Amino acid sequence: MTEHVYKLVELVGTSGASVSDAIQNAITRAAATVRNIKWFEVVQVRGEVKDGKVGHYQVTLKVGFTLD
Amino acid sequence: MTEHVYKLVELVGTSGASVSDAIQNAITRAAATVRNIKWFEVVQVRGEVKDGKVGHYQVTLKVGFTLD
Amino acid sequence: MTEHVYKLVELVGTSGASVSDAIQNAITRAAATVRNIKWFEVVQVRGEVKDGKVGHYQVTLKVGFTLD
Amino acid sequence: MTEHVYKLVELVGTSGASVSDAIQNAITRAAATVRNIKWFEVVQVRGEVKDGKVGHYQVTLKVGFTLD
Amino acid sequence: MTEHVYKLVELVGTSGASVSDAIQNAITRAAATVRNIKWFEVVQVRGEVKDGKVGHYQVTLKVGFTLD
Amino acid sequence: MTEHVYKLVELVGTSGASVSDAIQNAITRAAATVRNIKWFEVVQVRGEVKDGKVGHYQVTLKVGFTLD
Amino acid sequence: MTEHVYKLVELVGTSGASVSDAIQNAITRAAATVRNIKWFEVVQVRGEVKDGKVGHYQVTLKVGFTLD
Amino acid sequence: MTEHVYKLVELVGTSGASVSDAIQNAITRAAATVRNIKWFEVVQVRGEVKDGKVGHYQVTLKVGFTLD
Amino acid sequence: MTEHVYKLVELVGTSGASVSDAIQNAITRAAATVRNIKWFEVVQVRGEVKDGKVGHYQVTLKVGFTLD
Amino acid sequence: MTEHVYKLVELVGTSGASVSDAIQNAITRAAATVRNIKWFEVVQVRGEVKDGKVGHYQVTLKVGFTLD
Amino acid sequence: MTEHVYKLVELVGTSGASVSDAIQNAITRAAATVRNIKWFEVVQVRGEVKDGKVGHYQVTLKVGFTLD
Amino acid sequence: MTEHVYKLVELVGTSGASVSDAIQNAITRAAATVRNIKWFEVVQVRGEVKDGKVGHYQVTLKVGFTLD
Repeated sequence: MTEHVYKLVELVGTSGASVSDAIQNAITRAAATVRNIKWFEVVQVRGEVKDGKVGHYQVTLKVGFTLD
Repeated sequence: MTEHVYKLVELVGTSGASVSDAIQNAITRAAATVRNIKWFEVVQVRGEVKDGKVGHYQVTLKVGFTLD
Repeated sequence: MTEHVYKLVELVGTSGASVSDAIQNAITRAAATVRNIKWFEVVQVRGEVKDGKVGHYQVTLKVGFTLD
Repeated sequence: MTEHVYKLVELVGTSGASVSDAIQNAITRAAATVRNIKWFEVVQVRGEVKDGKVGHYQVTLKVGFTLD
Repeated sequence: MTEHVYKLVELVGTSGASVSDAIQNAITRAAATVRNIKWFEVVQVRGEVKDGKVGHYQVTLKVGFTLD
Repeated sequence: MTEHVYKLVELVGTSGASVSDAIQNAITRAAATVRNIKWFEVVQVRGEVKDGKVGHYQVTLKVGFTLD
Repeated sequence: MTEHVYKLVELVGTSGASVSDAIQNAITRAAATVRNIKWFEVVQVRGEVKDGKVGHYQVTLKVGFTLD
Repeated sequence: MTEHVYKLVELVGTSGASVSDAIQNAITRAAATVRNIKWFEVVQVRGEVKDGKVGHYQVTLKVGFTLD
Repeated sequence: MTEHVYKLVELVGTSGASVSDAIQNAITRAAATVRNIKWFEVVQVRGEVKDGKVGHYQVTLKVGFTLD
Repeated sequence: MTEHVYKLVELVGTSGASVSDAIQNAITRAAATVRNIKWFEVVQVRGEVKDGKVGHYQVTLKVGFTLD
Repeated sequence: MTEHVYKLVELVGTSGASVSDAIQNAITRAAATVRNIKWFEVVQVRGEVKDGKVGHYQVTLKVGFTLD
Repeated sequence: MTEHVYKLVELVGTSGASVSDAIQNAITRAAATVRNIKWFEVVQVRGEVKDGKVGHYQVTLKVGFTLD
């Protein structure tokens, strides 16, 4: 019935382990201050290289949540 | 004289009635917490379909306002 | 529990009346052969001009539905 | 038989009433100086906000017409 | 010698487990009705969030196959 | 009077001879199963290289046709 | 020494024969009213289909010329 | 009260000195034939290199003005 | 060791003097309320024209900072 | 069995004759220094105009080859 | 103090195992001839399908390194 | 008469002073190993922020040169 309004915030999650981990880290951080997170969209995947190996994945994502 | 700085926030307005309504809903919600909204830009128009009919329009827009 | 797979088909709806009408026409036509349409995304809005007036709106949209 | 050449001009139509109205205003203005307008393509939809309400819609569109 | 024609269909695979799983789910479903799938291209990665955790990954992909 | 709905399908035509040939091959194949093809739009041109020469052109195109 | 200013106009050339022909037709038409055309850039290639064959190529291009 | 229509023209300004200079050169040239220029948008920045140094900046911009 | 999460906010800095100045103005304003700004990315450069001269540069940028 | 790595280099081929010729010229030149060229992708087609006629086609393409 | 210049090369890494593996394979290969690789950016994820299963992931990425 | 082939390399120039300086630094570095640099195209402008001030500009550009 009510017509929701959602907000999108752009975050960069990082992880030394995996792309999924980087996404989850960003969402976990967002969830610490925002309620009602509903979805995310990956904008870019990049990473830092150290000694010829992927050091950290850096995933830019938009996180959408309901505005009360 | 002063050189303003503006901020853009990305919102998704929804409406069962129309695209215009979805835009206005997002702006109304933003105006409840932000003063000095100056403009908006439509980023995407999508919607939910129910029983072969458009249920809700979902309009992603950026809303720009002056930072005091 | 089940993990759905959705299909997106690209359609162009047309209407002499309005953009919303063009969207609804495309969805109505799709619903005649496809069950479980869930959402649409507008890709492009264009139109035909006749005698200096908008003749037909032509709205390209993607329509998403569940594959059973 | 003849192979037409078309020209596209980029305009911004504005309207306090609706997106459709803004499109029609741009086409009306173009038709005052150009014959044979055939089609338009919407490039961007934005608008001005006043007192938390959409003031004017500003629709950027390309208008195509036959060069004689 | 023969010059093949390929078709691309756009699908959204989902998975609670991983992005790879979502891709494989979409391809498995497509393979149930289409022979000769040759390649896929990821168009978008997004997902649903529940209780501050990634619920389902939703991967939009194009799947290319040979038309006999 | 009637307001048509069109469908767009994405194909890759190939040809050892030329880009035009690759386009025509895709349309010929589509015309074998679909009536009322009205237009095409080139999405991408690529090709296979063999022994330092273009082997096959691969042209991705969208083909639009009227849904009856 | 002088610092030129160039203008870009967007045209659609058409030809029943080839893409190159469509480009040349647009440039020939432009050259009838504009001097000093220097370059062109292809924006889009599409075409009309008749009876399962490419009828006309329609090439959108930007044509750049020196403003005196 | 009146609902303005604006036109956008695409220009390339050049300057041996700076990007800003190239922008201003294009606007100065446009202002010689068009009244009521209101805004510009930078589309691309490129330049010519001579002897390992930037020779000329070439800035493509769209210039918007009110149609009376 | 810790895996940082960054946030990106979109701002428009303005300046009558230069593009660089507009960028710095936006960052200065952001730094008044946000600690740990790390980087910026220019999204768009546009400007206001007055009497045939660039009046204000308006630079849209994303500003990235560490979330504590 | 082996998992190849490919490299993409960006080239601009030119030809007074045709777009195909410009593509082949770029590939021929690349093949003079690089073995194992496998594919190309057209990035942009532009050209030089002289006396109202296409002078040279300039085709930007990416050329992919296997790294041994 | 010194102002570094970086170079970006575009590679396609492949792997039968995972997207991450394909990225690492490309970086490992690059590191065999280039020192000082600093970062990568994913440009595209695609793959080969065999017997209805993902055969190889093909990840196009840009790899950035310091020029000494 | 001869039909040149050009190569584009992607570089990131940096400078604590200005965007122009960052461009020139990249070109100077390229000119140390490549002859016949003809043009550049700016791909992205970003920068590092330190203590609320722009630290370094980082300009990604493509540099085009003639292959002998």
